[in-house]
Amino acid sequence: MDGIWRIMGSMGASQEEVIPITVFVAILCLCLVVGHLLEENRWLNESITAIIIGCVSGTIILFTSKWTSSHILRFDEELFFIYLLPPIIFNAGFQAKKKALFHNFLTIMLFGVVGVFVSTFIITSGSWFLFPKFSFHGLTPRDFLGIGTIFSSTDTVCTLQVLNQDESPLLYSLVFGEGIVNDATSVVLFNAVQKLQVDKIDGSTVLQVIGDFLYLFSTSTALGIGMGLLTSYALKCFYFGRHSTIREIAVMVLMAYLSYMLSELLELSGILTVFFTGIFMSQYAWYNVTDDSRITTWHVFAMMSSIAETFIFLYVGMDALDIKKWKMSRLSFWDSAGVYGSLMFLIFLGRAAFVFPLSALSNFMNRTSGSSIITFKHQVMILWAGLIRGAVSIALAFKQFTRHGKPLDPPNATVVKTTGLVVLSSTVVFGLFTKPLLNALLPQGTNNQKQNTAEEDMRLPLHSSEESATTNQLDGGLAHLIKRPVYAMHSLWLRFDDNYMRSIFGGPQSNESTVQTWHE
Amino acid sequence: MDGIWRIMGSMGASQEEVIPITVFVAILCLCLVVGHLLEENRWLNESITAIIIGCVSGTIILFTSKWTSSHILRFDEELFFIYLLPPIIFNAGFQAKKKALFHNFLTIMLFGVVGVFVSTFIITSGSWFLFPKFSFHGLTPRDFLGIGTIFSSTDTVCTLQVLNQDESPLLYSLVFGEGIVNDATSVVLFNAVQKLQVDKIDGSTVLQVIGDFLYLFSTSTALGIGMGLLTSYALKCFYFGRHSTIREIAVMVLMAYLSYMLSELLELSGILTVFFTGIFMSQYAWYNVTDDSRITTWHVFAMMSSIAETFIFLYVGMDALDIKKWKMSRLSFWDSAGVYGSLMFLIFLGRAAFVFPLSALSNFMNRTSGSSIITFKHQVMILWAGLIRGAVSIALAFKQFTRHGKPLDPPNATVVKTTGLVVLSSTVVFGLFTKPLLNALLPQGTNNQKQNTAEEDMRLPLHSSEESATTNQLDGGLAHLIKRPVYAMHSLWLRFDDNYMRSIFGGPQSNESTVQTWHE
Repeated sequence: MDGIWRIMGSMGASQEEVIPITVFVAILCLCLVVGHLLEENRWLNESITAIIIGCVSGTIILFTSKWTSSHILRFDEELFFIYLLPPIIFNAGFQAKKKALFHNFLTIMLFGVVGVFVSTFIITSGSWFLFPKFSFHGLTPRDFLGIGTIFSSTDTVCTLQVLNQDESPLLYSLVFGEGIVNDATSVVLFNAVQKLQVDKIDGSTVLQVIGDFLYLFSTSTALGIGMGLLTSYALKCFYFGRHSTIREIAVMVLMAYLSYMLSELLELSGILTVFFTGIFMSQYAWYNVTDDSRITTWHVFAMMSSIAETFIFLYVGMDALDIKKWKMSRLSFWDSAGVYGSLMFLIFLGRAAFVFPLSALSNFMNRTSGSSIITFKHQVMILWAGLIRGAVSIALAFKQFTRHGKPLDPPNATVVKTTGLVVLSSTVVFGLFTKPLLNALLPQGTNNQKQNTAEEDMRLPLHSSEESATTNQLDGGLAHLIKRPVYAMHSLWLRFDDNYMRSIFGGPQSNESTVQTWHE
Repeated sequence: MDGIWRIMGSMGASQEEVIPITVFVAILCLCLVVGHLLEENRWLNESITAIIIGCVSGTIILFTSKWTSSHILRFDEELFFIYLLPPIIFNAGFQAKKKALFHNFLTIMLFGVVGVFVSTFIITSGSWFLFPKFSFHGLTPRDFLGIGTIFSSTDTVCTLQVLNQDESPLLYSLVFGEGIVNDATSVVLFNAVQKLQVDKIDGSTVLQVIGDFLYLFSTSTALGIGMGLLTSYALKCFYFGRHSTIREIAVMVLMAYLSYMLSELLELSGILTVFFTGIFMSQYAWYNVTDDSRITTWHVFAMMSSIAETFIFLYVGMDALDIKKWKMSRLSFWDSAGVYGSLMFLIFLGRAAFVFPLSALSNFMNRTSGSSIITFKHQVMILWAGLIRGAVSIALAFKQFTRHGKPLDPPNATVVKTTGLVVLSSTVVFGLFTKPLLNALLPQGTNNQKQNTAEEDMRLPLHSSEESATTNQLDGGLAHLIKRPVYAMHSLWLRFDDNYMRSIFGGPQSNESTVQTWHE
């Protein structure tokens, strides 16, 4: 290591770029190996492993660089939003079990949209009230609103690594769906808040934010669906695989990325757009390509997503030891601890304030459908899963409180530093106890929520053209639409999908059965 | 388009990064579609298509930006050497037909190493002599040496897209092998020249350059082989696929990249290193992973390579219209034409000066082996294929003659501009006529060089464990070693590979036969 730094000193600009990349790639490889070896560990998961390795590497770098810096790559929120986030979200859409998402659509939207608003309100007003008690001054109203959205953005990656899609499908789809909608909502809300030029928040401000939010949400979704369908149509028309499977795969990858960038260019929410592009590409485009392309795209998207996630957690671990930010914040140790503690408390409060009421509301709405009741144990797991803060929080904090990765003044440094600490501690602590808690609350085998979720097998290209028992019974018409609105909509969609969409955009054609499933 | 530029004006730093990426990705998609539609065209290939699309896009951008700039991404030689070149070269090694490369090893090394030295000598001394005749002054001796290496670096991608590996395997392996060795040699030679601090070139300088070159060549190769074997061993030991195929694929991708970066960090030739990593990973590592990982890695590496190539050619097309560089060079139109013309002449001379003599030498050496005679028609095709200059030339020219993509003075601007022009014109003109020339010289069907190159089929994982008829006859001992050194070495290697390497690093095990092929 010392040798590397000696070389670094003697080289020009070229080596300055080469060293951090080399070290980072080497550490990424290490994470993969350690993650593999710890796969069957009861406590650890990949996120925690990456954070711990990041901390250790940070310490080593801090030591070899003579205590000047603990990280080799400057965190750049552009890097995060332009290169790391798109593959993660696209893959989430691409590999989503669409049926479960569709069935729990209303509940997910409640948690993901209303929940973020509730949580933002509580954290904003709570920090406004609590921060001055720890002699933390100097933040503007917009900063407090920013803090509210930053700490309302959950990171459910950790929990999803633990939850089993087949053992607890309801819980999985709720946590997963909420995670995506929450990411999108908090980023959209953050951007809406960033645009506010007022120093006072009143009723019209709230209406303006909600209006902006609805506009962004609907246009982003429409763009994502449009790009997904365009890709599917192009792949079907041209059938690139005739000449080259490589080109086919490249088109899918590039179009996925293009949809994100286009959305960002039009100032919409790239996250929502690319999520829906992913859903529609897996629903239609995936059926218009060769078998090799299917296997490859499935693995490529998953791999890029996994590398991006590991990259982020590694960084969070390294950043925790960033001495400069610690020094820049002028708060005493106890005041810092107070700010940190109040944020952790507000996060818990903000989450508890909507999980239980909204679960009750969701159960009330679903009372006639006879299924999908969220038990109290489920609610506790949903509360727990949403306590973890992750990369989106870090990226948003850097966006609002730093200029090119460096905070401008002590209050900003305090917020950035505390965000890092909250992300680190929540990931490690809540992450560590997720598996034990899950085993205590929902012991495997006794879980009777298990539905007909056939194991997704990549080697069966038309895996989802089989009918599922559940959706087959749901063909009822107007009476159903009133009684069980989501199920009825699903059933209507299936007919539409089968009769029109699939014939235009591709997908498994049904010869033997009339009702096809909106495949998982 | 106008709307985009209007938005660009009104946005902050974030949009400034988003716009070029969005436009570039969209143009990349367009290239893929057009490339697909023109697949069966007699003249065009993907490189030329990309260059033409680049030119057209450049014109549109020049028009919409009110004649200030024709390209949206600044060419950055770091971007090229750190992100675009590694996947291209790695893929070349990964998908190389190793048997053909091995059989023609000596000829390839003659062309790739001795050829570059001859060509560099001719272009350096020729431009030293000719440039002042077109009132082009102001270059240092080191600049002339730089020009010599820059214009000795061939781009064989265009020709390879036309040559058929099964129709003319000897030609293909010579052109392909020379292309790789040439890339590596010219970059290594360029770096050796860059280090020279003398204003005069004498015998000791030449010896020093050759010594440096040999050192870099051998250490880079050793590092590449080491990294390839390490990856294979790790994949075999850990068998990541047991838990997750994603991790397996990620390890292969990251280790490939790590080998390139590590080599650059140690100031070796990343190109050579990553090429050998590719060869050894496809020889051993590829057999230690699951079927899905094999299909995925094969396609992923090819896709990344293809996108990187298209990206580069697009840029070359856009850069051709860069008005600033044209204005900065103070030469008159006729003097510029003279400099351009003399470089094209020198490139031709430098290539002709070694292709014919070295072919004769190679034929003389191979006279006893009875096969692989390079006919005159082959020699003409090899000469032709090596006239095209490509991305490596551009990148080296930017490295020596610009600072952050901008030339410092008029002579430098002239060199950079002329390099762009040479690359553009040679790719388009020589590229266009490659197919017709090949058909004229070597009509399909009459080509009797066809060997037993079984079609590579990705769906047959152990495709290369079959014995080939050629290598089976080659088991002879010392008599062979003298008479046909390369074939005998190959045979010895096969025994070693089978008895030791495969059992340690993985690969198809032979139960039924004792001699295995060094698979294609």
